[in-house]
Amino acid sequence: MAIVFVTIAPLGTATPSLSKYVAGVEKVLRASGLKHQLTAMGTLIEGELDQILEVIRSMHEQPFHEGAVRVSTSLKIDDRRDGAAHTIAGKVRSVEEKLKEP
Amino acid sequence: MAIVFVTIAPLGTATPSLSKYVAGVEKVLRASGLKHQLTAMGTLIEGELDQILEVIRSMHEQPFHEGAVRVSTSLKIDDRRDGAAHTIAGKVRSVEEKLKEP
Amino acid sequence: MAIVFVTIAPLGTATPSLSKYVAGVEKVLRASGLKHQLTAMGTLIEGELDQILEVIRSMHEQPFHEGAVRVSTSLKIDDRRDGAAHTIAGKVRSVEEKLKEP
Amino acid sequence: MAIVFVTIAPLGTATPSLSKYVAGVEKVLRASGLKHQLTAMGTLIEGELDQILEVIRSMHEQPFHEGAVRVSTSLKIDDRRDGAAHTIAGKVRSVEEKLKEP
Repeated sequence: MAIVFVTIAPLGTATPSLSKYVAGVEKVLRASGLKHQLTAMGTLIEGELDQILEVIRSMHEQPFHEGAVRVSTSLKIDDRRDGAAHTIAGKVRSVEEKLKEP
Repeated sequence: MAIVFVTIAPLGTATPSLSKYVAGVEKVLRASGLKHQLTAMGTLIEGELDQILEVIRSMHEQPFHEGAVRVSTSLKIDDRRDGAAHTIAGKVRSVEEKLKEP
Repeated sequence: MAIVFVTIAPLGTATPSLSKYVAGVEKVLRASGLKHQLTAMGTLIEGELDQILEVIRSMHEQPFHEGAVRVSTSLKIDDRRDGAAHTIAGKVRSVEEKLKEP
Repeated sequence: MAIVFVTIAPLGTATPSLSKYVAGVEKVLRASGLKHQLTAMGTLIEGELDQILEVIRSMHEQPFHEGAVRVSTSLKIDDRRDGAAHTIAGKVRSVEEKLKEP
């Protein structure tokens, strides 16, 4: 199981507002059924790495379908294979538990 | 007003679990009083850019105080000055509204 | 044609030195024959996007083959489709030409 | 001594070509005298961390001076304090030496 943080932004869009494009990309992700969390700076996705990368490949195409000629896509993969629970919710919970310790 | 996404990770810690260090860094941020959101892949901070950068500078020192000898800190600044509302909650709301459009 | 910047780092490696792992990852890239440039903070790769992503997928596995249990891989894709020349050398040349202008 | 990789890009610029802005930002960096390396995907800077961050703060303002209303700045700090040589040239050399090993 991997967690991926992804940001997809068209460049040279005439307007500094990108939410229209972000919504287009988010729709592609939602159609995949993968567990995810939208934030103000990118989207977290949780699941099997190859499945996530396949969906991100489609997400990256979306702004081109909507007229963009240049797209900048950043992703960060956190892939942990030591058997520890590794989920979006679990990672946050683990930090919050340590914050409660005296 | 800027929004910054920051990730701070020590390298060479012997254990692959980093939540102890993340909690230490988060404590420094909480003490600053800045509005923020902890996620599984980094923390979003909202506010005046110079104030945010000053706090991140302290956050970056924290793992060294806890024994780390190498720290990797990534940040992404989104600085918008065209008068549009620019907050962690507002950016997500703007995308969600576009997702509801037919 | 796309340009991708990629960084692959194992977490929890006992030693803060990662060059051994970087060399292992670089070997996988060299075997691919793709044009690339190694830098102190990551590697630039130039070529057809799907080919690049396939190689990065193999590069990401390499530290696991060498004993790592957690790998953090960051990549940034710059994909430009407006017909402008878009190469590692061309992008730098374009900036350097503008720096020479009075 | 730290090494920082920085990318500064205006959003909503009407044209997908950003080299004009990159050149403006690079001029600010050159004026600082800090050791650096321009690449197709960002610039590496080597030196004392606080000095680097101060220069990046000025670099981030530059696109606004040239008309941008939104600027996205990404930086990655690699800060190593175990006494190991930690320079742009040294990190690459270290990997290349390992690539020569049988």
